[in-house]
Amino acid sequence: MQKTKNNRAVWAEKNIVYLIDQTKLPFKEEIFVSKQYKTTCQAIITMITRGAGSIGATAGFAMMQAAFEAPKNNYQDFIKKAKKEIEETRPTAQDLFTAVNRVYNKALTSIKNAEKEAHKIADETSQAGKLIGQKGNILIKNDFKILTHCNAGPLALVEYGSALAPIIEAHISGKKVFVYVDETRPRNQGAKLTAWELKKAGVPHVIIADNVAGLLMMQSKIDIVITGADRIAKNGDTANKIGTLEKAVLAKEFKIPFYIAAPKSTFDNNILTGSDIPIEERSQDEVLYITGIDKDNRIREIQIASPGSKAYNPAFDITPSKYITGFITPDGIISSGKIKDYIS
Amino acid sequence: MQKTKNNRAVWAEKNIVYLIDQTKLPFKEEIFVSKQYKTTCQAIITMITRGAGSIGATAGFAMMQAAFEAPKNNYQDFIKKAKKEIEETRPTAQDLFTAVNRVYNKALTSIKNAEKEAHKIADETSQAGKLIGQKGNILIKNDFKILTHCNAGPLALVEYGSALAPIIEAHISGKKVFVYVDETRPRNQGAKLTAWELKKAGVPHVIIADNVAGLLMMQSKIDIVITGADRIAKNGDTANKIGTLEKAVLAKEFKIPFYIAAPKSTFDNNILTGSDIPIEERSQDEVLYITGIDKDNRIREIQIASPGSKAYNPAFDITPSKYITGFITPDGIISSGKIKDYIS
Repeated sequence: MQKTKNNRAVWAEKNIVYLIDQTKLPFKEEIFVSKQYKTTCQAIITMITRGAGSIGATAGFAMMQAAFEAPKNNYQDFIKKAKKEIEETRPTAQDLFTAVNRVYNKALTSIKNAEKEAHKIADETSQAGKLIGQKGNILIKNDFKILTHCNAGPLALVEYGSALAPIIEAHISGKKVFVYVDETRPRNQGAKLTAWELKKAGVPHVIIADNVAGLLMMQSKIDIVITGADRIAKNGDTANKIGTLEKAVLAKEFKIPFYIAAPKSTFDNNILTGSDIPIEERSQDEVLYITGIDKDNRIREIQIASPGSKAYNPAFDITPSKYITGFITPDGIISSGKIKDYIS
Repeated sequence: MQKTKNNRAVWAEKNIVYLIDQTKLPFKEEIFVSKQYKTTCQAIITMITRGAGSIGATAGFAMMQAAFEAPKNNYQDFIKKAKKEIEETRPTAQDLFTAVNRVYNKALTSIKNAEKEAHKIADETSQAGKLIGQKGNILIKNDFKILTHCNAGPLALVEYGSALAPIIEAHISGKKVFVYVDETRPRNQGAKLTAWELKKAGVPHVIIADNVAGLLMMQSKIDIVITGADRIAKNGDTANKIGTLEKAVLAKEFKIPFYIAAPKSTFDNNILTGSDIPIEERSQDEVLYITGIDKDNRIREIQIASPGSKAYNPAFDITPSKYITGFITPDGIISSGKIKDYIS
């Protein structure tokens, strides 16, 4: 793969945007190069970039590109039209709107200011992950064996990630750490993305089937569990990738600390408890089929379940706060009971 | 598929042995027909038949075939040589040795007696499953939603199975039941074999990723958990497919009854507690690669994890008896504390 800038998943140089192509990972490591805002829009639509933080940063850069491209005699109209176009790529991603608005408002003053703002957004997103890493590092002792579920790494948050940030920080700071990576069925984000990121960061790890953590915990082979989150309610109940609840219950049973790592944007001030969070049910095909590479290195999809049987595929579960030891945020470690104060 | 005899996975008519070809399931439903004991030996070696009970019955039929084939002028030598050959197909399967010995001893008296004995073994194995079904049926109320893990169905035990027997019995007896089938990574025996068996039996079910059960239990969508077992210690600690422990811990947390269904041969009088049971570690390739069918219906193996990362693949875990509500045996429901008396 080409060298990335500071290990970032998203970055820009002048008017050119670079993205680690997440649709090809982990089987092909390619950097997608976009020279026009319209191409960057397509990259968001086709999920070449994924993860709220990374989407926001990419959208900001797309807005910056539009400012570069705008003809002098039609500057204002051009960037206004481009803004709308970028906003329509992923209409529900809050980070996208915030970023596009911020860069657009600066673009109204100058191209230079738009460029600065776009880089600032990427830097801030990266910084949130960096702080999560630094604050969470204190939880990780030398020789710790860590379990993580799904993917909450650099790809999703421009650079450092959430759940993986403290782990990578601990590794960089010289601690010996070892990560058990839940493969995270049905979409295998653990086996595909987290494993790829840990290998890239040089952090020792193995992939395990999601069925294995219970045995490892009973054998005292896991010292701490750290996962990311999709949304955190005011009482600390946390929505995250399906299977998180199982790991949290097991961690409590075997007296292992269970932490959620998340930037402040994941805490939702409008949600009182987990029961207010709707659980998205996704296509059964995610369970019945899987994508990988064959021996000729060709990406293929195959059916892996008994034909004629259906599958039920809830994408998330809710982990009640009583199973969560605490939250690793850019502002430090916060216990479940203090979340209300943190986000209000 | 050709019609099977009484839904059996293994049966014989005169000197011909019929096996549901488990190497092709669930993608091809084929019956393997063996007209000679040597062909039946090959079927055991290549795992066309699998599961201790089914292997035993098949080996008994192979011994019967040898008696049919033996020339009158060299009968004794022929069947003795055949016995050794059959025993060498799977040298560690206890059921195989018992069955071969029983049929061999009858073959010494007459071909007819050998034939009778071979059928008797298959019938007894089937009967154990049938009794498990009848005894376990009382645990299943109308409208029950049942979770099962891995495969402990008709394919493994000639006809009725262990964990699936009470479920199918409840269904046949007119109760409305619904089964959540853990896909059971890494080998997907749930998605591949259990789903296939339940569909065949007409029992309503869906396949779920192994990550989903926690959510379902928290939502009160599971009334009982029933799994099979590989080995049960005198104190009730149970070795079974990896992931069983996770389901048992979750069931206890959410106050859902958790039962193990097993024939008497699974209870091991020589093992005091679960810590005496060794846990087999299998090839990492079972986690990193998977087999299924592509859109052209061709069976393919693909790599589904980040290349360069390794996997850790323990095949079983130990569920301490404190998580097990009871055992469903051919002799009735037995609590963990009474296992010692049951098997001594």
